[in-house]
Amino acid sequence: MQRKIYLDMHTLAEAQQLFWSRFTNHVTGDETIASRLAIGRVTAGPVSARFSSPSFHSAAMDGLAVHAEDTFGATDETPLTLRIDTGEAVPINTGYPLPPDKNAVIMIENVLLGEDGKTAAIRAPVYPWQHVRKVGEDIVATELLFPTGHQLRPPDLGALITGGCATVRVRKRPKIVIIPTGSELVALEDYPEAVPAGKTIESNATVLAGLAEQAGAEVEITPIISDDFESIKKHLSAILTAGADLVIINAGSSAGSADYTVQIIEQLGEVLVHGITIMPGKPTILGAIDNTPVVGVPGYPVSAIIAMEQLVVPLLAHMQGVYVAPPVAIKAILAKDMPSKSGIEEFRRMIVGRIGVNFVAVPLKQGAGAITTLTRANGILRIGAASEGEMHGREVAIELLVPQPQVERTLLCTGSHDLCLDVLNDFLRKEDPAYPLASTHVGSLGGIMALKQGMCHLAGSHLLDPSDGSYNTSYIRKHLAGRDIRIVTLVYREQGFIVAKGNPKNITSVRDLFGAGIRFINRQAGSGTRVLLDYELSRHDLDPDGIYGYQQDEYTHMAVAVAVLSGKVDTGLGIKSAARALGLDFLPLVEERYDLLIPGEVFDSPMIQAVLTVIGTPLFKQTVEGMGGYSTRETGNLVSLA
Amino acid sequence: MQRKIYLDMHTLAEAQQLFWSRFTNHVTGDETIASRLAIGRVTAGPVSARFSSPSFHSAAMDGLAVHAEDTFGATDETPLTLRIDTGEAVPINTGYPLPPDKNAVIMIENVLLGEDGKTAAIRAPVYPWQHVRKVGEDIVATELLFPTGHQLRPPDLGALITGGCATVRVRKRPKIVIIPTGSELVALEDYPEAVPAGKTIESNATVLAGLAEQAGAEVEITPIISDDFESIKKHLSAILTAGADLVIINAGSSAGSADYTVQIIEQLGEVLVHGITIMPGKPTILGAIDNTPVVGVPGYPVSAIIAMEQLVVPLLAHMQGVYVAPPVAIKAILAKDMPSKSGIEEFRRMIVGRIGVNFVAVPLKQGAGAITTLTRANGILRIGAASEGEMHGREVAIELLVPQPQVERTLLCTGSHDLCLDVLNDFLRKEDPAYPLASTHVGSLGGIMALKQGMCHLAGSHLLDPSDGSYNTSYIRKHLAGRDIRIVTLVYREQGFIVAKGNPKNITSVRDLFGAGIRFINRQAGSGTRVLLDYELSRHDLDPDGIYGYQQDEYTHMAVAVAVLSGKVDTGLGIKSAARALGLDFLPLVEERYDLLIPGEVFDSPMIQAVLTVIGTPLFKQTVEGMGGYSTRETGNLVSLA
Repeated sequence: MQRKIYLDMHTLAEAQQLFWSRFTNHVTGDETIASRLAIGRVTAGPVSARFSSPSFHSAAMDGLAVHAEDTFGATDETPLTLRIDTGEAVPINTGYPLPPDKNAVIMIENVLLGEDGKTAAIRAPVYPWQHVRKVGEDIVATELLFPTGHQLRPPDLGALITGGCATVRVRKRPKIVIIPTGSELVALEDYPEAVPAGKTIESNATVLAGLAEQAGAEVEITPIISDDFESIKKHLSAILTAGADLVIINAGSSAGSADYTVQIIEQLGEVLVHGITIMPGKPTILGAIDNTPVVGVPGYPVSAIIAMEQLVVPLLAHMQGVYVAPPVAIKAILAKDMPSKSGIEEFRRMIVGRIGVNFVAVPLKQGAGAITTLTRANGILRIGAASEGEMHGREVAIELLVPQPQVERTLLCTGSHDLCLDVLNDFLRKEDPAYPLASTHVGSLGGIMALKQGMCHLAGSHLLDPSDGSYNTSYIRKHLAGRDIRIVTLVYREQGFIVAKGNPKNITSVRDLFGAGIRFINRQAGSGTRVLLDYELSRHDLDPDGIYGYQQDEYTHMAVAVAVLSGKVDTGLGIKSAARALGLDFLPLVEERYDLLIPGEVFDSPMIQAVLTVIGTPLFKQTVEGMGGYSTRETGNLVSLA
Repeated sequence: MQRKIYLDMHTLAEAQQLFWSRFTNHVTGDETIASRLAIGRVTAGPVSARFSSPSFHSAAMDGLAVHAEDTFGATDETPLTLRIDTGEAVPINTGYPLPPDKNAVIMIENVLLGEDGKTAAIRAPVYPWQHVRKVGEDIVATELLFPTGHQLRPPDLGALITGGCATVRVRKRPKIVIIPTGSELVALEDYPEAVPAGKTIESNATVLAGLAEQAGAEVEITPIISDDFESIKKHLSAILTAGADLVIINAGSSAGSADYTVQIIEQLGEVLVHGITIMPGKPTILGAIDNTPVVGVPGYPVSAIIAMEQLVVPLLAHMQGVYVAPPVAIKAILAKDMPSKSGIEEFRRMIVGRIGVNFVAVPLKQGAGAITTLTRANGILRIGAASEGEMHGREVAIELLVPQPQVERTLLCTGSHDLCLDVLNDFLRKEDPAYPLASTHVGSLGGIMALKQGMCHLAGSHLLDPSDGSYNTSYIRKHLAGRDIRIVTLVYREQGFIVAKGNPKNITSVRDLFGAGIRFINRQAGSGTRVLLDYELSRHDLDPDGIYGYQQDEYTHMAVAVAVLSGKVDTGLGIKSAARALGLDFLPLVEERYDLLIPGEVFDSPMIQAVLTVIGTPLFKQTVEGMGGYSTRETGNLVSLA
């Protein structure tokens, strides 16, 4: 096993400078295309009008074309009569040519037509060229319509066509080729029903292609190449011979034993950068072969996207002579501590919403492998290399991934996890306007803490008070004393043991968790499910230390179900719908109430009112009950804190 | 001549409500398409993952796969040796499946490999599942990937493919048909060399199609139909029979004698709205025929675009179940008074730039016919129906048409007009970063007033002081006393008489302007050219009242040249390049200096420095001299005010 460590890591700014400056003169060639098809294209030179517009003096209003001097002296007291039949006044519609002997238009509203249509009386004069669109009023032939480097939008096509430019000279789209590499990769089309054991579905090429196309490129994706030095090298050489403006190799950009990209680029050309002090995105390679930029993009999906956005997309824009607008950034209050490794610039995916006057930003998990952190996020927090992280409550700058108004309508939901929240999100998205429900899962007690800090619009909770069998109320009284918190019941739901199909280990009670060879997976401290387990154990006077795996925990019902499905454990405590979703068996333990806790300050907002409307609909209740293990008998009820 | 006055005008909000509420249930059908091709499409229902990802436990790092329990007890003092040859530790690359008997990965960086590769020493234990990507860590089969109504972006395709969704159910694109009508319209393709007399090039259909396509629609543009009641009615009926989600008729939406749209919609269906209290866009018709929305869009290009954006685009979004984000708005200081008719909501096209800490907004001209006001604008000011206008110096909200960073880099140039400013703009756009030069023309003195009010970055000026033959300096001392103004010479240029080819009226001096039948066009008061003319007249003791047309004025050299070209006048005073651009003849009168006046506060900004760099280049000077009538002998010189 060989190991090549990154010789010389660069900061992102250094890497950008080294890479882009090498290709400063790389601008794509020109081509002449039909103006009608030119939206999004970039002018390759100054564009001048060929025709003037209007090309003739025309009526700017419906009315009568006249010689202005003929109308002088008309007043309310001494109206003038103009003859239509002799051509002294000529009826005219907007846009029509002014007769050669006329130089003004009287608006039809200011004319009293004679009964026979032969005359028209007017009570005020017009001045010369009144209500006339003169030749060249909009566009003068030869004038500059667009400078070089203008990216054409729909109204621009109107100016081109009106100015007589049926065609326009634009920059060619940069041609880029994406090579997916990896012996573990398979195409989804080849395995539509299941991923073969040990294989991974190739998905990055489509994502990178989409980003490149949005940046104006023409993209070719080659077939998947196995991790074989010679194959990749031969393939890359052939592509370079055929010609491309930029080549992306994905992945093999790291320094593992099957990571050949860096050696191949070294052999064929020059490695400018290997390793960038960013996370995700560290194992990125920037190279040049025969003056063509070749980029080794990391394999983890979030790493790949960040490398693409930070390094490749701006170069594609440069090649077309346009500038990429930096993302819109807003200030937001950080909902959690976010420690960060000094020396590394981090790109953290965030969910942002507005609570009162502030934006609040909640981090999603860190892993570069989780594409869903990027699809769920609506913002990115960049933590600088010099920083050791950010503290919760601090104001930070968030780069937005969606338009700001959508961020403002985002419901921040946290606390306990329940699958009904996905149903609620889906229903809310069908409302007009839609309120995206962005939920993060921190357990019931975590939700109460988020409420305390003003970091969410609503929190799911199912905290049992063993002393009286109540849910949530005693916890709110204890932790949120003096706060106006409304409690709305979402569902009753069954909690129990999630076990493999057929319940092979025959688990039916908490006592069975102590059996020989039984591997258990716990939920995290502070989760309602953990409280429930601990209550059940204490009620039966059982010592948790006797359970193998009690110290191992997961954060969601689905994660527990997946642990069972994968054979990693035999059982864990969770909700029936999670078991059912993965085709597992379920042994009910208790029915519990799951509430939404909502701060009084936001209760009357349109967002929360939309939530209450949705959960009150029969269709929502039917959908929830259809998932199994739920009762909606009290859904929407307001629970008294008293 | 018939006249139908709008019976019942509606406000924009009323019109939107009447129109959209009629089509609340209009949502396009579903279709299943390849996920790879789904960027920009909108999910038609909740999308659940079919596969988990990862689908197996895999290494999250390059290193050694081990059973974590085998590593317990390793410390710096008591390193442990693991055997690779027996399979106790297994070399593994990132992404590869974890062997079934292993539950953790040791990073390669933390391993000391034996010389023979058969053993590995470690100095710290790993905990179970460390550096392992567990099954379902990113995506759990059955989990909600996207709710209904999600518009798919490139990373979303990664989640779809990774989650096993090779296809996705999305909303069909709404099908819209655009019918250009008007007997005066011709296609540019049919008349590529010149517009026939009295005809207008059809351009709106392409613009409206572009806006509809950007809003997700599939668009068909029909051939141009003449202004004939029966032809239009038959054509519309045929389109409705063939089926469309929305039909646009452009134009004929007004109340002129050839405006048939409203009667046709009345006969075939129902007119919901005719006439909206907006400008541009007033003569808009909103109708329904057999439950299909039919919109009569006005003919003026700006009116057409505003009607489209305000009424049609949001309905197209609704049909696809998405929400259109409102435009980004910023606060800006208004550079001029903008009176507005009460009772009409105005959409004024603006140029916005940043000067110091403030954004400044300069209005472009009002006309609905001027497509270039929309192509040149970078923002829109909406003046409410209740308002009688806005005062200069007031803070107003501007809806941006370009990304805010581009606004921040926009150079506000005003004052006198010169064609070199177009060359300068083109050269600045080729710089990296590009600084768009947005110029408005208010004459030299107008530029000095704008400088006084802090409403521009630079102003073109060529104000002659007859007392000493100096340019600009005495005006600055008088009007901008105490202000730090830098004067940079742009060019020397020839001013003279612009006349028709061959100079048929034989004009060679100011005395000739007094000849019988000579029609003159003046420049506006406060322009340097007007100052020059008045100086020349007084020098020769001539009374302006003797010049036919002295009271008629235009605002630019090109407008004067167009007046000559169109035969409206025989001559006017202007620069040689304007005459040359339109193939007219030119009789020089004087050579004058044309300077750029720049406030000291912005002189050192990158924007102004870019201007100074560009005008110093030989290529800029060559290009300017090539236009004729220019000398660059002092271009870039700093003129002393002392």
